Amino acid sequence: MYSAKRVIFFVSDSTGITVKTLGESLLAQFDTIKTEQKILPFVNNLSEAHAAVEHINNAAKECPYRPIVFATLTDPALRDIIAASNCMFIDLFGAFIEPLEREFETKSNHAVGRSHAIQQANGSYDSRIAAINFTLQHDDGAYIDRYKEADVILVGASRSGKTPTCVYLAIQFGVSAANYPLTDEDVEGMKLPAILEPFRHKLFGLTIKPERLHQIRQDRRPNSRYSSLQQCSFEIQKIEALYRKINLPFIDTTSTSVEEIASRILQRTKLEHFCEV
Amino acid sequence: MYSAKRVIFFVSDSTGITVKTLGESLLAQFDTIKTEQKILPFVNNLSEAHAAVEHINNAAKECPYRPIVFATLTDPALRDIIAASNCMFIDLFGAFIEPLEREFETKSNHAVGRSHAIQQANGSYDSRIAAINFTLQHDDGAYIDRYKEADVILVGASRSGKTPTCVYLAIQFGVSAANYPLTDEDVEGMKLPAILEPFRHKLFGLTIKPERLHQIRQDRRPNSRYSSLQQCSFEIQKIEALYRKINLPFIDTTSTSVEEIASRILQRTKLEHFCEV
Repeated sequence: MYSAKRVIFFVSDSTGITVKTLGESLLAQFDTIKTEQKILPFVNNLSEAHAAVEHINNAAKECPYRPIVFATLTDPALRDIIAASNCMFIDLFGAFIEPLEREFETKSNHAVGRSHAIQQANGSYDSRIAAINFTLQHDDGAYIDRYKEADVILVGASRSGKTPTCVYLAIQFGVSAANYPLTDEDVEGMKLPAILEPFRHKLFGLTIKPERLHQIRQDRRPNSRYSSLQQCSFEIQKIEALYRKINLPFIDTTSTSVEEIASRILQRTKLEHFCEV
Repeated sequence: MYSAKRVIFFVSDSTGITVKTLGESLLAQFDTIKTEQKILPFVNNLSEAHAAVEHINNAAKECPYRPIVFATLTDPALRDIIAASNCMFIDLFGAFIEPLEREFETKSNHAVGRSHAIQQANGSYDSRIAAINFTLQHDDGAYIDRYKEADVILVGASRSGKTPTCVYLAIQFGVSAANYPLTDEDVEGMKLPAILEPFRHKLFGLTIKPERLHQIRQDRRPNSRYSSLQQCSFEIQKIEALYRKINLPFIDTTSTSVEEIASRILQRTKLEHFCEV
């Protein structure tokens, strides 16, 4: 039994990840509305479209409001089937195909799952897997001798967010990202370790609020020198001073999502078609 | 100097990842059109909007066709500025806000970057970082004693795609994903290792075409027994027979993107609001 929440369906002929992300950012504009979300991915044929309609119509019966369906479906026949269910149908795809056909003066393919096919044909799939392997091998200062193969090298205090950012850069963008933890020695001497000098142009710094770092390190090694607020404050103060001294671009990860950290790094380093505005 | 390619801009007040993904899947419907892509993320204020317009208008001057601009901008004032540039403006956001306002009988916030704020408030950011840490600690059969904390455990031959899939499940969905490589012993005995038995309900199998596995392993250890086509064929044949014997759900990763593998696993395991159709 559904409560008075609005039931939201994200329907896709692919993974549903894009429709969910865009749908959620639209819904985030209505913060008083409570929702219950369901993802219906890989709706590729008539029988799956009819099964999706059944899901939607069942939800409509159990709820005082009609469901809201966000859809990215390339096949107009499948779109029409879903749109005819008992719902508010928000078509994130169909609305734009016709204007693009006019602009390009050509018909669209209406080919389901086309973006994945292209992704593999141009090798970007393999390059992402290679980037993930590179990133995991070069986590936390490992195999420094192969830094010349890195697209970017993140530096920062232990637990300032280097690893999740590297992993995201690799899997989302195919960027080979290594990371190097700045040690007490580096911090106290207020200089980069010599080993990083040849790669200055690839370095990007991370920082974090000392209070947050203290909290994260407490989870890992409670009541240690390593996790003390005093040590965290000391490291962060020195590290930020170092970044400024050597003019290294850096970003504060404290209340920044991993997507945003990654995008800002790509924007600053002008990798992956990101431009500064 | 631009060639006769169509110049595409993805403009966002956030990371640009969603607008790029949806824009690319629209463009993939026009496979004869060559494009040159640029991402303009974090367009959050008037001066950045005007800088974006300059980028777009410069491209328009250098190219026989007007640029195509895909935008996800929550602030109508910024949308209007970009829309007035010399371009075809495709508004992936504004078109849907008004219908949603009517449906919800309430005004939207028009709050920039709202989705990230919510993401952090509900703790999903921390849970993704925790999932990434879990996944990296439990890669390749490590720390099996803590498998009870895993949401899902992937099994399969060495190099069949377990690690990239686990990493994607963690960073995109906050799913704690461990993985365990099936050894020769497991394969020859045609049974799961005893250590995995208590976690049967969390297991998901991966497989891959022997020819592709051979190719991947050749890159890693050329001309070894491990990488021989004969060994790859033997392992895969046995592993698929094992999956069928014990009725384990599995997926072939050979020509499947990591997004699709992850989504299909979530759909089958009914994690993360994914439903089967």
